[in-house]
Amino acid sequence: MTVFDDGIALETTADGSMRGRTVPEWANMVGPFGGITAAVLVHAVERQPDVHGLPLAVTVNYLAPIVDGEFDIRARAVRTNRTNQHWIVELSQGGETRTTATAVFGIRRDTWTDTEYPRPQVPSPTELPESDGGPTWMRNYDMRYVAGGLPDPDDGPAASSETLLWVRDNPLRPVDFPSLAAVCDIFYPRVFLRRAQLTPAGTVSITVYFHAAPADLAAQGAEYLLARARGQQFAAGHFDQTAQIWGAGGALLATSHQIVYFKG
Amino acid sequence: MTVFDDGIALETTADGSMRGRTVPEWANMVGPFGGITAAVLVHAVERQPDVHGLPLAVTVNYLAPIVDGEFDIRARAVRTNRTNQHWIVELSQGGETRTTATAVFGIRRDTWTDTEYPRPQVPSPTELPESDGGPTWMRNYDMRYVAGGLPDPDDGPAASSETLLWVRDNPLRPVDFPSLAAVCDIFYPRVFLRRAQLTPAGTVSITVYFHAAPADLAAQGAEYLLARARGQQFAAGHFDQTAQIWGAGGALLATSHQIVYFKG
Repeated sequence: MTVFDDGIALETTADGSMRGRTVPEWANMVGPFGGITAAVLVHAVERQPDVHGLPLAVTVNYLAPIVDGEFDIRARAVRTNRTNQHWIVELSQGGETRTTATAVFGIRRDTWTDTEYPRPQVPSPTELPESDGGPTWMRNYDMRYVAGGLPDPDDGPAASSETLLWVRDNPLRPVDFPSLAAVCDIFYPRVFLRRAQLTPAGTVSITVYFHAAPADLAAQGAEYLLARARGQQFAAGHFDQTAQIWGAGGALLATSHQIVYFKG
Repeated sequence: MTVFDDGIALETTADGSMRGRTVPEWANMVGPFGGITAAVLVHAVERQPDVHGLPLAVTVNYLAPIVDGEFDIRARAVRTNRTNQHWIVELSQGGETRTTATAVFGIRRDTWTDTEYPRPQVPSPTELPESDGGPTWMRNYDMRYVAGGLPDPDDGPAASSETLLWVRDNPLRPVDFPSLAAVCDIFYPRVFLRRAQLTPAGTVSITVYFHAAPADLAAQGAEYLLARARGQQFAAGHFDQTAQIWGAGGALLATSHQIVYFKG
């Protein structure tokens, strides 16, 4: 059991919903790291007795900060088809919804396969220093920035919001669907790079597409993932970001997108 | 009133839900074009009496084909904050849910703005031929492919799944949030290009981020949009696609992503 397992731990309550709780090690600036919330929502669906297939797509919407303590998750299977299943999920505290999600689970079949967005050629993680600094939750990852590390105010504004880093769980833990969801949210807000200042910012909605099959996850084990994110449009208090997560074998295990609120 | 307005027309029923109907001009291979379904869901939230702000993010999940005839849409505001509002939406026929969505509406504020993913330099639409062919709904658009047009089996497999086209409504209609959502789904399945064959394929889930403010839409009017899509990973019966929609002024009006089921 690692700190990640603590973060996604759930028990089933008498009324059939799931109960989890915040863990201090996952603290962000306000409330827990959004990635651990995405992970616990994926895990809540995985644990449903009538689940059909494996995670294919999840969208998580952050309605209000989760406060320290217990939370309840209700997952409803809206439709089960032959090859997939659609879920609506709500996380609440004191009867008040804090996070919503939709999830698609599906059956994977053998088909033609291709990684059209290849993994960039970069130095190996052992050639790069381990990052420190940042909010509490970052201690739960071994992060080695190739480009676009946490900006120093002396750096000045960057022309590109791209960040590229090697990342794995700390302590080591084999990658699974919940941990892959969390890694999709590993990137500090892109606006920090472009503005060279830490303005208030937070994810409004994130979507993760899971491309990994169980055999891909088994082959990955606890090895480093290469994670990339870049903003596309910054306007009127929001920006979007597109992200790719490559595995040790060079295939994309997940792709992700999010829209983020920012000030200034 | 254009064919697009017909496709998103809604009336409020006695129980407070909304009722719409399929329009033959929007027919796709199976059921209506997914883009018109995304558009009518955005429009259903826009029409709610307690709506707060303008569309910021929408995720639409296609659970089952919509059959010809009427459909009902129920939209529930899960939370209203000072600057945004979160919705869960379900479209049903005969009491059976066919489509689900989450939507975030928000207040736009004046902030620092930048288009980090600039509009590619391409020939103007008037220098390019108007595309024909494809399913019925494509007649509702004036589409001029710059690259990655509908493949001919004689072309052989393409190395890239990128498509780049100019597009505007046919007949002309000023761009609004629902029509921008529809254009995000304008791209035929990327696997057709890579495999040089029309295999069965369909969108499972699409997300649209709206970057346009009302002033951007007013400036755009009914001018051509430049639309780009490219697949990232093809594996185990699904691929994802990332898409950008630039306006006449060169800013990104919307960005989008989807995950698509395919055979073979």
